[in-house]
Amino acid sequence: MKKIINNPDDVINESLAGVAAAHADLVRVEYDPAIIVRVDAPVQGKVGIVSGGGSGHEPMHGGFVGMGMLDAACPGDVFTSPTPDQMEAATKAVDGGAGVLHIVKNYTGDVMNFEMAAELAQAEGTNVEAVVIDDDVAVQDSLYTAGRRGVGATVLAEKICGAAAERGDDLKTVADLCRKVNANSRSMGMALTSCTVPAAGEPTFQIGEDEMEIGIGIHGEPGRERMKVKSAKEIVGMMSEAIVSDLPFNSGDSVIAMVNGMGGTPLIELYLVYNELNEFLKEKGITIARNLVGNYITSLEMAGCSITLLKADDELLELWDAPVLTPALRWGE
Amino acid sequence: MKKIINNPDDVINESLAGVAAAHADLVRVEYDPAIIVRVDAPVQGKVGIVSGGGSGHEPMHGGFVGMGMLDAACPGDVFTSPTPDQMEAATKAVDGGAGVLHIVKNYTGDVMNFEMAAELAQAEGTNVEAVVIDDDVAVQDSLYTAGRRGVGATVLAEKICGAAAERGDDLKTVADLCRKVNANSRSMGMALTSCTVPAAGEPTFQIGEDEMEIGIGIHGEPGRERMKVKSAKEIVGMMSEAIVSDLPFNSGDSVIAMVNGMGGTPLIELYLVYNELNEFLKEKGITIARNLVGNYITSLEMAGCSITLLKADDELLELWDAPVLTPALRWGE
Repeated sequence: MKKIINNPDDVINESLAGVAAAHADLVRVEYDPAIIVRVDAPVQGKVGIVSGGGSGHEPMHGGFVGMGMLDAACPGDVFTSPTPDQMEAATKAVDGGAGVLHIVKNYTGDVMNFEMAAELAQAEGTNVEAVVIDDDVAVQDSLYTAGRRGVGATVLAEKICGAAAERGDDLKTVADLCRKVNANSRSMGMALTSCTVPAAGEPTFQIGEDEMEIGIGIHGEPGRERMKVKSAKEIVGMMSEAIVSDLPFNSGDSVIAMVNGMGGTPLIELYLVYNELNEFLKEKGITIARNLVGNYITSLEMAGCSITLLKADDELLELWDAPVLTPALRWGE
Repeated sequence: MKKIINNPDDVINESLAGVAAAHADLVRVEYDPAIIVRVDAPVQGKVGIVSGGGSGHEPMHGGFVGMGMLDAACPGDVFTSPTPDQMEAATKAVDGGAGVLHIVKNYTGDVMNFEMAAELAQAEGTNVEAVVIDDDVAVQDSLYTAGRRGVGATVLAEKICGAAAERGDDLKTVADLCRKVNANSRSMGMALTSCTVPAAGEPTFQIGEDEMEIGIGIHGEPGRERMKVKSAKEIVGMMSEAIVSDLPFNSGDSVIAMVNGMGGTPLIELYLVYNELNEFLKEKGITIARNLVGNYITSLEMAGCSITLLKADDELLELWDAPVLTPALRWGE
């Protein structure tokens, strides 16, 4: 896979420099260690929210730093956990005296490093809570994960917890909300093609010209099943059935739905998928109250998509609707 | 190229149904003929703004329908001009008594059909002005175009003219602004891979595993040169030099810059490109006053990017900053 890059070793830093130049009104970037920080951090008296993980999933997480969402993000190398010192630096940079929430996707390296960073920060007097996101119903345990993987619910948790922190909720309340979002969210993904990590230069996995993989992970980790490419209706049916039956979501439920592109699938297909999802849920008596359709948690240039559903109540919807002002998500300013 | 679709003949309508379901608060969709209309159109006393063109370039144009941008978009089949009756229906749907501006990308079919639609609408009493966008410096004449092709400047023109119409400017003023944006904009694109039209099922063109094409069109029309893949710095240098020398942009100029993805290039590369562009322009004494980095005018799943620069003055920046509320672009609500 060809890429528009210079030296593969410089991809992260050069991309971060682009983020810094493009969004100087919203974020500042530090390079040693690499963190993306809300421009006005630390906000005194507000709970700080930090997330992070391997790069290659943009706009997550750096694109979600700003008012009403994350206070800082730690970008690791591509598909590689950030280091504890990145996480510690981010935690200290956003500590406005009300403590810091770590939103951690469930990958072994991320969990371990965030734990270490929390200990370091706590030793220096910052109150830290961590919530691990594990919404992917595809598989139990995986290539880089014990238990379920953390995927799309991370985006929803970052938005909702960001709004709660913004209105002044305390650390325990924001962390409880994060657990509530995770407990009520389920996701599943699929891919038509592999992605290629810049430093590797070769596709992460091989897949036939007429094949797709259901339940794939955001780093190309094996999913549930490799099969011939099906119609959008069948693809959405398989993913949605797995998601809906898992929580379960029931008739009468209201949900926040995200149809997410893996990076290489055009918007015209994502809206077509959203249409199928909407029809599928209507049949089940489930109503989509809010939605996101687009590329939010990607796998470089992988072609494919994922679906995330969050069972919503009035509190979650109010926090969802609250203003947000980040590079990748902005409304109600 | 595998796609997440059902019957290739249904891609547009099923995708439109997804847009309608996802954005019912912003737009309504009509199917016969197919148009995407601002939910509160026609806005009495406001100049209506209509654009359109072949589908496959999403979010353009349907994603730009809403307050402060387009009043309606006409989606043709993939890479195929919409019909005059679509354009006429859109024109009538947004005529609030102050006339309607057609923003037309310079492709022969689009220009011809918009002309026909304007005649039809005018015969029925709607005042119509049309402005043709032709900002692509890559080639003179092309596969589907006499003269230069219309590309990224269309997005900027739609935003700026939308803001002018929103503040109450009359038809001539809005049309003159559109001409000013076009006259002061230049663009160029490049691709690493082809795209595949769903109904064709085969790549539009062949390109080697180590090749790229500079100056390519948004339908895969031939560009300036096929060559071995270069570094991001060299790629941005070639495109930017062609753009800057053409207008020309001069030291001391302030610009609105768009780094646009063709659909299959991840955001991490687009920000890396933005960084190179920013460095290139700094060297020339040109300042980026505002920017867009992301997928705005795409070519299905083509990997590649384009750069658009618009020489900005205070009036253009004020209109750029004005509130916009559409599926794909929203700020300052």
